[in-house]
Amino acid sequence: MKKLSILAVILFAGTGLFAQFGPPRLVSPEIKADSITFRFRAPKAIKVELNGDFLPKKPMKTNFGTFDAPAPVEMKEVKDGVWEYTVHNVAPDFYSYTFTVDNIRMLDPSNLQMVRDGQNVTNIVIMPGEKSNLYLEAKEKKGTLSKVWYPSPAFGANRRMYVYTPYGYETSGKKYPVFYLQHGGGGDEDAWTSLGRACQILDNLIAQGKAVPMIVVMPNASPNQLASPDVLDPLPSPSPMQQDRTSEAFHSGGAYVKGLVEDIIPYVESHYRVIKSKEARALAGLSMGGIYTLYTTAKYPNLFDYIGVLSMGFTPDRDPIKELTPVKTAGYKLYFVGCGESDFAYDNTKRLLKGLDDLGMKYTNFDKVGGHTWDTWRVCLKELAPVLFK
Amino acid sequence: MKKLSILAVILFAGTGLFAQFGPPRLVSPEIKADSITFRFRAPKAIKVELNGDFLPKKPMKTNFGTFDAPAPVEMKEVKDGVWEYTVHNVAPDFYSYTFTVDNIRMLDPSNLQMVRDGQNVTNIVIMPGEKSNLYLEAKEKKGTLSKVWYPSPAFGANRRMYVYTPYGYETSGKKYPVFYLQHGGGGDEDAWTSLGRACQILDNLIAQGKAVPMIVVMPNASPNQLASPDVLDPLPSPSPMQQDRTSEAFHSGGAYVKGLVEDIIPYVESHYRVIKSKEARALAGLSMGGIYTLYTTAKYPNLFDYIGVLSMGFTPDRDPIKELTPVKTAGYKLYFVGCGESDFAYDNTKRLLKGLDDLGMKYTNFDKVGGHTWDTWRVCLKELAPVLFK
Repeated sequence: MKKLSILAVILFAGTGLFAQFGPPRLVSPEIKADSITFRFRAPKAIKVELNGDFLPKKPMKTNFGTFDAPAPVEMKEVKDGVWEYTVHNVAPDFYSYTFTVDNIRMLDPSNLQMVRDGQNVTNIVIMPGEKSNLYLEAKEKKGTLSKVWYPSPAFGANRRMYVYTPYGYETSGKKYPVFYLQHGGGGDEDAWTSLGRACQILDNLIAQGKAVPMIVVMPNASPNQLASPDVLDPLPSPSPMQQDRTSEAFHSGGAYVKGLVEDIIPYVESHYRVIKSKEARALAGLSMGGIYTLYTTAKYPNLFDYIGVLSMGFTPDRDPIKELTPVKTAGYKLYFVGCGESDFAYDNTKRLLKGLDDLGMKYTNFDKVGGHTWDTWRVCLKELAPVLFK
Repeated sequence: MKKLSILAVILFAGTGLFAQFGPPRLVSPEIKADSITFRFRAPKAIKVELNGDFLPKKPMKTNFGTFDAPAPVEMKEVKDGVWEYTVHNVAPDFYSYTFTVDNIRMLDPSNLQMVRDGQNVTNIVIMPGEKSNLYLEAKEKKGTLSKVWYPSPAFGANRRMYVYTPYGYETSGKKYPVFYLQHGGGGDEDAWTSLGRACQILDNLIAQGKAVPMIVVMPNASPNQLASPDVLDPLPSPSPMQQDRTSEAFHSGGAYVKGLVEDIIPYVESHYRVIKSKEARALAGLSMGGIYTLYTTAKYPNLFDYIGVLSMGFTPDRDPIKELTPVKTAGYKLYFVGCGESDFAYDNTKRLLKGLDDLGMKYTNFDKVGGHTWDTWRVCLKELAPVLFK
């Protein structure tokens, strides 16, 4: 027994267990067949609330007006200072949640699974089921996610991107097509892999033979960042894109589009085993990333055969005919437009679709999605990835 | 102006700013020349405390006895419900901290920089200076960190490891030496890159010409995990190492050592451009990872020319002469022992050092470090990396 107890000390040293020796760890969230139970220990709290995008929507007042939004619910103290709330009939999906304890928002200390959406960190929980099965880890044949720093002369500094290489990349000797996948405003290179579950979706689709093995490059497209804000050191500021925020250069994608074409694509094509041709390049993005997709393909129509615009289209000040004509002239294999009617970008999307119609350009309009949220973009990725490079 | 305001909506959509429209974001932590100020907004709180490893130590009672530990300090409400505390004369280093609000421990919502130590998540802050300069992001020539799933027949499943490839790896055409770097009990494959700042330390040392470019492989050595616990899905349990926890196999490293030698090293040597020989392999680990280093080198003395044992040595039930003799017989280029006198593993370390002395084996004893903490292990990595593969 002595041997075991010495080993026990060794095995748990460094885990902070000494510091937090106390009541047993709670199980939260606890996922059952059709319910999720959340728990939080707060013996002295007066009010504990659960916030989550699985909760019923109610009209919520904000400074922008009144919107329907998931309303917080009060948790109940069940025993020994443990507060609890069970949500029933939870549809299979990926959800975010937090607690509010006496008016202070906090994370669930029992749940290590969290995502950052811009400046906000929340816990996540996935209810398994048909809609969410691609969001779960693939059992085998999983790709590799790399955090890559590349030199960006367009920004005058090193910038960071994430690169997904599919299972088998290291040893196959094959060359792969590349999907450039852009986040939205306020996001960064981390967003598609955390909020977007891009690795799990691609791993599953490729393992099931539904998508071809491809490299996915997720740049940082934020005008004021060189890398995601959880990287420790303050980065040089202002960036080139901050400097020209009121200029035409900014409104046509400015330094970002230049950086994508002059820095990122050449880096990827010289550092990875890829097919260097238009039919092996795809470009898509959500919201701000959708704008950049429109700008990039208008300016460089010979780079991408596969184009995806998610939750975005043309703002009223743009001329769809002018911006789409170069794409039509150059030719393309797929034009995917993904936006639901409840998305605030739907009017912009309608202008994009009308432009495509007016020019007689073929496209796929996927509108079986909801609002301007990650739920929409995960579903769009599930639809878009299988039709790329085919 | 209309164009700008539409863009503003687009740029901030998805960031949750709608949801959290409220008082301005606080600056916390605010780092000045020799002080750090922490801030937290809690208008209705009665007591807000700051916990941090930069705070003066006091005797703290725990169930294990009384230990000297950094004592929490009370923050003061300065205005509009904002609580504040300034720590003066902060020595340059990497620090962890949290807040305790009315007895509930929470993270600093103004600071996105956080690390997970096993089951505990804390915020971090780096005070720049000579001791901590290698912990900051290198300005250029930065390597790539990859999250790699590899098949592990020893565990009957896919497991995850992190792999650092140095700047230039993708295009140099060169073969590299490999440093296998193991975490401690309660840790996982994430620990050396988050708590240990391994990428920053290696990037800086290599860029400064102080360490040779090398690949660093950081396995998951936890007996009950296939990947770090922030990966969403529950993984198969019990694992082979959980099953034989009382067996001799467990106490000689069991499935982990088998997995390292039979799964991980062959995977790395078939998937990366590496030098496949003893003089191009290093193995080190802290605490439990130090035990695994001792076990692995005793059982496979022809694999590693560079050996590092951090905060660990021989427990009283082991025979140092028996376990070190194979290493002496096979020969080696470096035996690095890193442990300070205030470390609870120091007695074990003394047994290791005596064994090395008794056998007349050359070694480097680095004891200019403190206790059984990540501060010690970061400093050890700074000392060890420059003497590898030379």
